[in-house]
Amino acid sequence: MTGATEVEAILWQPGRLSLLDQTRLPGEEVWIETTDHAEVVRAIREMRVRGAPAIGVAAAYAMALAAIALESSPPPVFHASLHRAAADIASARPTAVNLGWAVEHCMEAAASAASPIDAANRIASLATRLHAEDVASNRALGRHGAPLLRDGVGVLTHCNTGSLATAGYGTALGVIRTAWEEGKRFPVFATETRPWLQGARLTMWEFARLGIAATLIVDSAAASLIRGGEIGAVVVGADRIAANGDVANKIGTYALALAAAAHEVPFYVAAPTSTIDLATADGDIIPIEERPGAEVTTFAGQAVAPLGANVRNPAFDVTPAALISAIATERGVARAPLGEALRRLATFSAVATP
Amino acid sequence: MTGATEVEAILWQPGRLSLLDQTRLPGEEVWIETTDHAEVVRAIREMRVRGAPAIGVAAAYAMALAAIALESSPPPVFHASLHRAAADIASARPTAVNLGWAVEHCMEAAASAASPIDAANRIASLATRLHAEDVASNRALGRHGAPLLRDGVGVLTHCNTGSLATAGYGTALGVIRTAWEEGKRFPVFATETRPWLQGARLTMWEFARLGIAATLIVDSAAASLIRGGEIGAVVVGADRIAANGDVANKIGTYALALAAAAHEVPFYVAAPTSTIDLATADGDIIPIEERPGAEVTTFAGQAVAPLGANVRNPAFDVTPAALISAIATERGVARAPLGEALRRLATFSAVATP
Repeated sequence: MTGATEVEAILWQPGRLSLLDQTRLPGEEVWIETTDHAEVVRAIREMRVRGAPAIGVAAAYAMALAAIALESSPPPVFHASLHRAAADIASARPTAVNLGWAVEHCMEAAASAASPIDAANRIASLATRLHAEDVASNRALGRHGAPLLRDGVGVLTHCNTGSLATAGYGTALGVIRTAWEEGKRFPVFATETRPWLQGARLTMWEFARLGIAATLIVDSAAASLIRGGEIGAVVVGADRIAANGDVANKIGTYALALAAAAHEVPFYVAAPTSTIDLATADGDIIPIEERPGAEVTTFAGQAVAPLGANVRNPAFDVTPAALISAIATERGVARAPLGEALRRLATFSAVATP
Repeated sequence: MTGATEVEAILWQPGRLSLLDQTRLPGEEVWIETTDHAEVVRAIREMRVRGAPAIGVAAAYAMALAAIALESSPPPVFHASLHRAAADIASARPTAVNLGWAVEHCMEAAASAASPIDAANRIASLATRLHAEDVASNRALGRHGAPLLRDGVGVLTHCNTGSLATAGYGTALGVIRTAWEEGKRFPVFATETRPWLQGARLTMWEFARLGIAATLIVDSAAASLIRGGEIGAVVVGADRIAANGDVANKIGTYALALAAAAHEVPFYVAAPTSTIDLATADGDIIPIEERPGAEVTTFAGQAVAPLGANVRNPAFDVTPAALISAIATERGVARAPLGEALRRLATFSAVATP
């Protein structure tokens, strides 16, 4: 279940970034290869690379590309241009906190550098470190989260939170994967995740590669399968976790949380601590990205709604902390009261490492 | 809002049935014209005609086509063959009660006939009567249901319950339409309704023809819009209503009812009394059709999931009576306790007409 089947969707050779184009899966494996940070911004915006942790890592590499391109510039030009690049990259998508988090860390690395070349080197090495740390962190997250899943009890996941959505291994999918690697066996269900079909296209593809038997359902069938007892746990990722434990995640997450709560089925979130945003008090102030209506009205270039149909297409929703049984992170599992537990987990490293 | 824009999807000329092929909308308006009841059965099975009331009327016409084709046969052959045709027609789809209800009424009409020709005439005239009654009944349903909707309060509907789903005018969509005709104005939202996209393809098409401004959303976005206060009422149709008020309807209905209940938003069902099945005690014993997985894994002929992906594709779910604020019918509105109110409404005509 490791080695040959391992999916890597973000590859870095010094000065050159390769991204597996997720809009083309599962039909084709097409790579975007670039030395231009603006092309990475476009790839993030067009969801060719997606998933909060993955766009965080891609953003760090985009910063490295921008810095490398500028490294022969005089320091004032370098810093002004890098600042503009950082603003572009950070604004590629609004909801995931990882994007701004990664860009900010890169800017801090640049601030303490002796020269533009030194800054470019520092950012590139920070990006590769964030990349490696995300994989390690997801494996740790999997180990902390796996005990939440039980032999024989059906598990539902939403959207894609696997190797494709992260730097590797996955978050919610990583928890399922670790439980499976530890020998547990349970029915696994994946929502197709409209409108972008991350579940059908990406999660089912990852489960197939991992040899985990999974069943695909439309998003709206989840409540009925929970009611029927086929699904006994839900585990999803997060794009941003507010200080009080409210979770912004892929549209449809909130409906799953309501269905789980109605049937006393545990609802788990799996996300690295970098997703916790202590500066955001609660979910209501998290900006929710509204995506183009064409994602809903057309499919593979074919219209599925009348021309000119009005559309609301929020990409994310907010699940209140009260509906969340636990949040698994790479540092441990937060349980109610979530706010306090999250603050402890999020500030842990700051306390532990001087 | 009437006249030119009126959609008629089922047309009958003696001995010949025309059905608007709903799998081709909104792109093309293609008609199936047939004299063969088996072709109607196929059209129902393949959802070329769909919606519980519409398949009830189509089934009655299929019975008429079968009887007309057999009318020169000797009576014993006629009755045996008609019986086989009835069994075929009634089993085209399992969940909607209207199908069996219409076939049964046709068999009763045949039973009292003097000859095969007389039986064929009686069935044909019963079918045209059921057709006309369904339209009249939907207009009455609209009048009873419209007071449930309020000026300025957003209304969500699911699947397609309009002229296409019925013999004409619609049930849940008819309630919205009547309220609109009465001058009320409120935001209207339609779910796309995966996997078959009845909402995107059919409901949005009907709203556009009726001049009712509507907004399309993915199914899983409803809970979030309800939470945000944009949707203040939900109105859906029904494929079968059990004696206790449990409602079988398009997959996803239950999730909408849970979201409505969580935010104290009223959840209404609009359906003719022919949908009430007093012989079915509660929703748990309603047969739920499982449709082919390809409806989920392919889209416009293109694969959207890995080859061989396992799928669960229930076409309907059951919403418990406790989550339903009221059920509007052509004879009035049933409110809690639903069981008693439904029994009164369903048996009303039997009591009133000897």
